[in-house]
Amino acid sequence: MDNETTTPVTVLGLGLMGTALARAFLKAGHPTTVWNRTAAKAASLVAEGARLAPTIGDALAAGGVTIVCLTDYPAVYDLLDADLDGATLVNLTSGDSAQAREAAEWAGKRGARYLDGAIMAIPSSIGTDEAVILLSGPRPDFDLGALGTVSHLGEDPGLASLYDVAGLAMMWSVLNAWLQGTAMLKTAGVDAATYATFAQQIAVGVAGWLPGYAEQVDKGSFPAEVSALETDARAMAHLVEESEALGVDAGLPKLIKAMADRAIAAGHGGEQYPVLIREFERGPRG
Amino acid sequence: MDNETTTPVTVLGLGLMGTALARAFLKAGHPTTVWNRTAAKAASLVAEGARLAPTIGDALAAGGVTIVCLTDYPAVYDLLDADLDGATLVNLTSGDSAQAREAAEWAGKRGARYLDGAIMAIPSSIGTDEAVILLSGPRPDFDLGALGTVSHLGEDPGLASLYDVAGLAMMWSVLNAWLQGTAMLKTAGVDAATYATFAQQIAVGVAGWLPGYAEQVDKGSFPAEVSALETDARAMAHLVEESEALGVDAGLPKLIKAMADRAIAAGHGGEQYPVLIREFERGPRG
Repeated sequence: MDNETTTPVTVLGLGLMGTALARAFLKAGHPTTVWNRTAAKAASLVAEGARLAPTIGDALAAGGVTIVCLTDYPAVYDLLDADLDGATLVNLTSGDSAQAREAAEWAGKRGARYLDGAIMAIPSSIGTDEAVILLSGPRPDFDLGALGTVSHLGEDPGLASLYDVAGLAMMWSVLNAWLQGTAMLKTAGVDAATYATFAQQIAVGVAGWLPGYAEQVDKGSFPAEVSALETDARAMAHLVEESEALGVDAGLPKLIKAMADRAIAAGHGGEQYPVLIREFERGPRG
Repeated sequence: MDNETTTPVTVLGLGLMGTALARAFLKAGHPTTVWNRTAAKAASLVAEGARLAPTIGDALAAGGVTIVCLTDYPAVYDLLDADLDGATLVNLTSGDSAQAREAAEWAGKRGARYLDGAIMAIPSSIGTDEAVILLSGPRPDFDLGALGTVSHLGEDPGLASLYDVAGLAMMWSVLNAWLQGTAMLKTAGVDAATYATFAQQIAVGVAGWLPGYAEQVDKGSFPAEVSALETDARAMAHLVEESEALGVDAGLPKLIKAMADRAIAAGHGGEQYPVLIREFERGPRG
């Protein structure tokens, strides 16, 4: 790594995640300043080459990119209630899209360039390709690749947070569907490892359909090229009944069927699955 | 293809699917006999080389493997209420695992070898690798590879049906999670195609964790190596709140959180996600 060409960075907040971020920057050769309310937490990083800023003003004065990784957004406002003129903030504090947009406005008024980010990773994976870092706001002219796989999603500062929760919804949904199937197969003596391979193939196969199905959503046209929703709904009833017959929780199967039933009731039974987007968009019926 | 070495097959039931099956057999060079209650439906297959059996007895006498593809299990019992001694039945009629096991017993009493199967495919994909055909029952000594990708799952005749509905649960879950995220991102002006690529990556990535997570399930031990359920639950609350704030349906996020909350209430908050298997296995609480 070439110290001369890596952006100087400052990390504010040295919890588990902030410490992992600072360490990854150090390893990649970024001149790294750290600050934490409890300065003692910086000791190991200082031993590894970080500079400890005695005050928040000093930390901001270090220039380069300031990475903010605090408990919540109110903590960010408390800490940075100062002149931020010329600062570049990358706020990786967890929050929602409204908080991100609000913080961008707040920072803009104080003269700072503001990016909001989300970390889809655990501290121990920071610095590896597996750590997905999502950024949104002005397109960065600096490189945070030391942290992991960094994506810039667009100008809207709320995007990182939205992609983050949407991605988590996918994560938990794949896990829950796998657990549903695992519980069902266990009743027939099939172990989880045996079923996992099959579940993995199905998940990967269906994931491959998403770009094609997305075209239907973007066109707002859902011809039943593969199968019609009312045909799917009959198989969903099967899934509910089979789960109940096996004594396995039927909450997930019932939710699947309920969403399809709503779309069928709205007259979309002859269309293809992605027509359900309208039910997801419209929220619960009164 | 070598006609001499392919098993003779008989297809009973020439609906859309049965017709697709018979056509795939013919294309692969299987000597193919067909039967349908309304014989006229067999005309095009006969033109392609199929032999039309005038009676069900004649159809069964053709020997080889008899593929059954009817409306439902009662239709199977009605049709095959005869001496089945020496017959090999592969019943691809849609049904649940209890129906499959019952049919296996029924067929066994009549002297038939019985396999139950499930078709994870639409008629137009039959004959391609994309068509997944699941079989369970005695290990087949014949090759149905002409139909698609054929898997034998084990001796229990209920397995094909169980894998089928479990796989469908995965399919709908991936699609629903994608629609949830698509609806959320659309509020920020992101089109479905843009988000689909991201959703696909997450689904494929998480699918890759399943074999490892399955080890935890099979061991019944769930140390929080990646993250603890109570940490996940905070992010789930975020997902629920963000969905509601955006006016997007929150049914799926709430179900995700409810399952985790149940496991946390049962004392598993410090364990890892797959500990939820206990909640899926135990069914809804009274």
